[in-house]
Amino acid sequence: MEQRLTVITLGVNDIDVARDFYSNTLGWTPESDLGKIVFYDLGGYLPALYSHEGLAKDITAPFERKLPAYHGFTLAYCTNSRAEVDDLFVKLREKGGIILKKPQEVFWGGYSGYFQDPDGHAWEVAHNPSWRINRDGRFERIATSD
Amino acid sequence: MEQRLTVITLGVNDIDVARDFYSNTLGWTPESDLGKIVFYDLGGYLPALYSHEGLAKDITAPFERKLPAYHGFTLAYCTNSRAEVDDLFVKLREKGGIILKKPQEVFWGGYSGYFQDPDGHAWEVAHNPSWRINRDGRFERIATSD
Repeated sequence: MEQRLTVITLGVNDIDVARDFYSNTLGWTPESDLGKIVFYDLGGYLPALYSHEGLAKDITAPFERKLPAYHGFTLAYCTNSRAEVDDLFVKLREKGGIILKKPQEVFWGGYSGYFQDPDGHAWEVAHNPSWRINRDGRFERIATSD
Repeated sequence: MEQRLTVITLGVNDIDVARDFYSNTLGWTPESDLGKIVFYDLGGYLPALYSHEGLAKDITAPFERKLPAYHGFTLAYCTNSRAEVDDLFVKLREKGGIILKKPQEVFWGGYSGYFQDPDGHAWEVAHNPSWRINRDGRFERIATSD
């Protein structure tokens, strides 16, 4: 299996509420919107929004209406500075975003906070001093000198 | 918020079992392995494996030992042909992978199956005839002619 991933589908309770959050609160532009499923293109890999019922059915699992607060995964948006993390949380708060954890210094040497989307999917916003986000929005490890 | 995503952290029950699956069954090479957390680089965005307990604590949510079968999200690996989907499932089965849904024609016009990783995270392997995976492993929409 080649080292790649094409789609990350997030199950949602209400596609209109979820689309509004990603398109308007976060400000992302959909790659395509088929009404029941919305794709965002992050440079060749795609988060998608689709109903919990449809997604559970697709994997042949029963759909329990209420997921636990912890869904078993998180998504992270990394920045090149602590100030970018702080700025993003200020803007999210202004737009009514739900903050799970205020930005703070964390045990692994970085600076990080969490917000959640309308379906409780957890997003970390973090600055890792060993990492750089390049102009294409991609991760690069900062070489350490000896 | 720029249109990007850096890390997708998958909560796991046993980091050694999960690492073995991604590194040996799927055949991916870690970008870094800090023992308690393992990162795989998919060209500038990183799936990571980390303990359920640690991840739930990080987002300040209670950890319920057992997640429902449906975790609220799925990951998808897209291919350029149906044969690639079939081949991958044959190999996964040989290696003892757990198949959730055999590859089959699906309502949206593609061909798709699902397997799960050792922690029950659902992976779709799909061929979407409107999509192409380029040499960099990235999605491109196939232009439709009028």
